[in-house]
Amino acid sequence: MLSLLDLRRRIDAGDLTPAAALDLCRAAIAAREPEIRALVHLDAHAAPGQSAAGAPLGGIAVGVKDIIDVAGLPTRMGSPLYDGDVPRADAPVVTALRRAGAVPLAKTTTTPFAFLDPTETRNPAAPGCTPGGSSSGSAAAVAAGMLPLALGTQTGGSVIRPAAFCGVAAIKPSARLLPTVGVKCFSWTLDTVGLFAATVPDVAYALAAIAGRPELCLPPGDPRETGAGLRLGVLRQGFAGEAEPEAQAALDEAARAAERAGARIVPLADPPLLAEAWRLHATIQNFEAAQALGWEYDTHRDALPPLLQALLDEAAIVEPGAYDDARRVVHRARGAAGALFEEVDAILAYAAPGPAPRGLGSTGSSSFNRLWTLTGDPCVAVPGILAPDGRPVGVQTIARFGRDEEALRAADFVAAAVAAAR
Amino acid sequence: MLSLLDLRRRIDAGDLTPAAALDLCRAAIAAREPEIRALVHLDAHAAPGQSAAGAPLGGIAVGVKDIIDVAGLPTRMGSPLYDGDVPRADAPVVTALRRAGAVPLAKTTTTPFAFLDPTETRNPAAPGCTPGGSSSGSAAAVAAGMLPLALGTQTGGSVIRPAAFCGVAAIKPSARLLPTVGVKCFSWTLDTVGLFAATVPDVAYALAAIAGRPELCLPPGDPRETGAGLRLGVLRQGFAGEAEPEAQAALDEAARAAERAGARIVPLADPPLLAEAWRLHATIQNFEAAQALGWEYDTHRDALPPLLQALLDEAAIVEPGAYDDARRVVHRARGAAGALFEEVDAILAYAAPGPAPRGLGSTGSSSFNRLWTLTGDPCVAVPGILAPDGRPVGVQTIARFGRDEEALRAADFVAAAVAAAR
Repeated sequence: MLSLLDLRRRIDAGDLTPAAALDLCRAAIAAREPEIRALVHLDAHAAPGQSAAGAPLGGIAVGVKDIIDVAGLPTRMGSPLYDGDVPRADAPVVTALRRAGAVPLAKTTTTPFAFLDPTETRNPAAPGCTPGGSSSGSAAAVAAGMLPLALGTQTGGSVIRPAAFCGVAAIKPSARLLPTVGVKCFSWTLDTVGLFAATVPDVAYALAAIAGRPELCLPPGDPRETGAGLRLGVLRQGFAGEAEPEAQAALDEAARAAERAGARIVPLADPPLLAEAWRLHATIQNFEAAQALGWEYDTHRDALPPLLQALLDEAAIVEPGAYDDARRVVHRARGAAGALFEEVDAILAYAAPGPAPRGLGSTGSSSFNRLWTLTGDPCVAVPGILAPDGRPVGVQTIARFGRDEEALRAADFVAAAVAAAR
Repeated sequence: MLSLLDLRRRIDAGDLTPAAALDLCRAAIAAREPEIRALVHLDAHAAPGQSAAGAPLGGIAVGVKDIIDVAGLPTRMGSPLYDGDVPRADAPVVTALRRAGAVPLAKTTTTPFAFLDPTETRNPAAPGCTPGGSSSGSAAAVAAGMLPLALGTQTGGSVIRPAAFCGVAAIKPSARLLPTVGVKCFSWTLDTVGLFAATVPDVAYALAAIAGRPELCLPPGDPRETGAGLRLGVLRQGFAGEAEPEAQAALDEAARAAERAGARIVPLADPPLLAEAWRLHATIQNFEAAQALGWEYDTHRDALPPLLQALLDEAAIVEPGAYDDARRVVHRARGAAGALFEEVDAILAYAAPGPAPRGLGSTGSSSFNRLWTLTGDPCVAVPGILAPDGRPVGVQTIARFGRDEEALRAADFVAAAVAAAR
């Protein structure tokens, strides 16, 4: 993979120009894209700005999920309905990338309208398996070493799940830390813009630069030293179903390694209010999707892919009263989630039910991600754990709303501890 | 003015076809628009659907503020930057209008990007005065009797203020009751879609139909009977500055008339936390606007009108920490606003500092509106009070978040009480 911080170090040292860093990506894309199919558009004219060398993300090529507007590039939403649509303006998150010196080099594949109908994208880390979705191309492009950074979005589990399946780092930040303006809406309460990169420090550095919040950068040094004394809660989310043996083994491995590295492991019981909120994710998502995708449904229902069509058929019957009730429960559940962080600095949890499912027929399940998209708490996918057959198995760290740096620090700690123990 | 409920009664009685109702609007537009200049686009092909007669808003022509997408019609955001932009899809609120049978007949003028630089639109109710902004055309088109319903948006005071200046009814519903998807963003926390119509019952009926919430319709009968026992708090918002004598007289008149009609008037002191939140409106708005309009600012700053340009120059320096602090205060202020509604059913307050200012150089001040856009509480502009010189002077009712029906009932009660007492 291409590490963003590694590229930046080489640029800072004068060993690499921003333009040469982009060329590295173009060469990798030429080599891998025919097999991986992670991109829907490559910008042949993209080039770093004059002052790129000194900018925090100068020379960094970014993949942008194809439901996010980039001025002058087509945005297809993964659907022929939007063939030929070229937005005039950048989404604000793309503006923020450009302000930090980054270059949107490619649009990456998305499942149609970021729901469950799969793309043709391959998983570079688990051949023959889905890369996950809906941010399929962003996860796969980073995993294949084609890009050092990519934008995705999560409404259920569309950032953390593909990161786990492809073995890359990712963050779903606190709700609205990155604006969703200029991003095709599925659910305005749930949609969250996130980032993919090779390592947790890469993700932290990129988020700090985009959000203009330098405190999100991880401190230099061995995370096992800077993170000593970390209190890490382990939450199994039994309400979300049983994880597969590989995921259980990965969570155990991560907790054991973290404990050996000096963390205090605190087993947490599933709060009943969080279980109740988890079950209401669909009520909120579907009520809003029936409105957000109303034009597509009312005027082009037959052109929608089967899973989305079925979802919107079902979504049309959610009553406002059920939605209001669900929102009240979620409001209280946010408080209950916050209370968990009185006892621990961060939570360690399954990132997905198991490694990437075989075949391309399904993007997998978001069951272990939904709760945190509802609460808006930041989640970080921790790379580096492999199942016995070599497929990546992700775990995630979760922190209190607004404390993205805690989730990043915990993820960095766990990743370092796992690497040291392997 | 064209009353929506009156049109619907005539359609229900078979005295008017939906197509003839649209023709009434076209005729009024032909007569008044050359003087008023409330519209930027008229859809020559718009026509009611087959089943319009039986649909709740069948035959109702709607004006759509020109920052809201209507499929196939140009959306200019009040700025030449967006010349030629034709959105593919309807904004979800437009889909909701169509599902209820309404017909988007025209796009209405907006100040550029819904900020303060004025349009050329005239105030039909106060000749020589501003119609207010930013939803200038929507308020003016309803006031001129050209349309029975119009959509606007409010980030500071852009729905309630122009309604007050033009003497029409309007609602800024609870935050996110109507989706802001497909609406050009200024501030994702504050932007709120609202409705203009001739009377409060018209507004209530339209909101009920669009939101699929029949409980928002006002009960039939004299509101002074159905609303007996109403507890109405009077809040002067001293932190927002002093109102002009005409506005003070209007608030006194409304309170007196309501009391005479049987309401209990409760003078409320300004809670200090609400004053603090009010002062932070700009911090939240500006921090988000610097991102939301980042593409426009970075690539076309010189093409932006002067007030917006100056705002964005200033907005660029708001620090994330100041924004985070402001959000925490606002979170607590929402609780403080909620506590006011333990004592009263609704609040009666100034809708604007006075009647519409003379000339077209300024759209007036949003100082008495900002707080409620921040808290997300529903506000209803009450028409029917005139200053001694004949200019409309608005008051507004405000209810607890999510209790839009309370704000509507109180507004209906006050409007009826004022009419009976005049």
